[in-house]
Amino acid sequence: MTLCWIDGQPASQLSVKDRGLAYGDGFFETLLVKAGQPLLFSGHMHRLALTGKRLAFALDLPLIESECRAFAHQMQEGVMKLIITRGDGLRGYAPVPGARGVRILQASPLPAYPPSNAEHGVRLFPCRTRLAEQPLLAGLKHLNRLEQVLARNEWHDTEHAEGLMRDTSGRIVEAVYSNLFLVKGGVLLTPDLSRCGVAGIMRAEVLRLGEQQNMAVRALDLGMSDLRKADEVFVCNSVYGIWPVREFEQLNWPVGPVTRKLQHLARGLLDI
Amino acid sequence: MTLCWIDGQPASQLSVKDRGLAYGDGFFETLLVKAGQPLLFSGHMHRLALTGKRLAFALDLPLIESECRAFAHQMQEGVMKLIITRGDGLRGYAPVPGARGVRILQASPLPAYPPSNAEHGVRLFPCRTRLAEQPLLAGLKHLNRLEQVLARNEWHDTEHAEGLMRDTSGRIVEAVYSNLFLVKGGVLLTPDLSRCGVAGIMRAEVLRLGEQQNMAVRALDLGMSDLRKADEVFVCNSVYGIWPVREFEQLNWPVGPVTRKLQHLARGLLDI
Repeated sequence: MTLCWIDGQPASQLSVKDRGLAYGDGFFETLLVKAGQPLLFSGHMHRLALTGKRLAFALDLPLIESECRAFAHQMQEGVMKLIITRGDGLRGYAPVPGARGVRILQASPLPAYPPSNAEHGVRLFPCRTRLAEQPLLAGLKHLNRLEQVLARNEWHDTEHAEGLMRDTSGRIVEAVYSNLFLVKGGVLLTPDLSRCGVAGIMRAEVLRLGEQQNMAVRALDLGMSDLRKADEVFVCNSVYGIWPVREFEQLNWPVGPVTRKLQHLARGLLDI
Repeated sequence: MTLCWIDGQPASQLSVKDRGLAYGDGFFETLLVKAGQPLLFSGHMHRLALTGKRLAFALDLPLIESECRAFAHQMQEGVMKLIITRGDGLRGYAPVPGARGVRILQASPLPAYPPSNAEHGVRLFPCRTRLAEQPLLAGLKHLNRLEQVLARNEWHDTEHAEGLMRDTSGRIVEAVYSNLFLVKGGVLLTPDLSRCGVAGIMRAEVLRLGEQQNMAVRALDLGMSDLRKADEVFVCNSVYGIWPVREFEQLNWPVGPVTRKLQHLARGLLDI
């Protein structure tokens, strides 16, 4: 049995009355664990706190932090998923005021991605599923993820490691489980996420690393024409770091120097 | 303990790996049960089948139907909630191909709404939470319901029995747990739900009843000016039937004859 805790106790089952199931009333973080340590931990905890505030949870952050550290210590290595739900609820949509949230921690092994993803880059599938524009939930890693499920169900081959997602207005937003970056004329560009999308922890780190490298860095609205004009393209998340994008439909990109440099720096953040 | 079955067996807990929890990857129906019978059953089963198809589930519909009937027989009276999830999944968003779905049935008592809701009508809260426009999920009663949670959390008084929700473009869509109808010049109007909203079973029945009464009936885009000009307004769902709307912000409506007539007919559908 895989390691799993609910509210600090070993458990593998949750009440069917939980609002995380009934309404997707909750949010999650996915963290890489190495040598018993959760990586990019302060970034994940920062987003968790922000999400809790926006969804009106009364989180016990010190308790969550210490529980995550203890869980990571026990699992030693792998991927740690933390889900916070609003717990058993009143009947109907009204949330219980002041809910501190149910804490679910699950361990899974390090994913076995093909090494060529990082070395030679990946091909992106052109997802037809568009992301709806909902500023109230934009940026959050909440439990309402049917759009990602539909998008990921659009391809079944192994040729595409990720899929490109646009919003209902046609703007480029992200990949299904990654954020997206373009490099154009030495400037690092990533989609603005104020209408939809998940504000990834690695995305924030890449923006920070870019600035540290004295690059111009911008989060803004990007369309398909920006993608076509890009010198380099890459995707990122806090489990695999950075994958260059080598192909999207008719477009091809080399693995460029900016991508390689940032990939190297990101790898440093995911090593211990 | 309240009555609950998972895949036909008494149970109160679900695997924490279930994709209904992880991604809201599933959908539900809420049915009124009287004298051991699920009411408006064919309508609910029809929507369930449609939803399963749109979300790529391989539902065993005869099994679901017979299980619902057996469960309703056991509970005799109350509200029966059926949740279908995609079950334990692969790691990541990719759904398991051909998943038949986990079947969760939960019983709860008949809700104790104030009788004045049906008699004298209700006041609607003006929700600031807007519904995002996502045609791929529009109409479905899926498990991604954070917008409803946020909207229902906007008021805590008992003066407002329901809240009016608009889409991000400002169109009127529905109430938080009900559908909405306007009557204008003897014509029955309800918002088109091709961009967002839940296509309620009682909504379909009311449209059918209106036609049966030789009324002109239309589902179309409606704005705030249509609401202001309405002669009568009401909300409906398959648990309480029809509630007249008597007040929304500065607007007031009498409980009109069309509402009363349809309310009477809807009550007939929810009696046995």
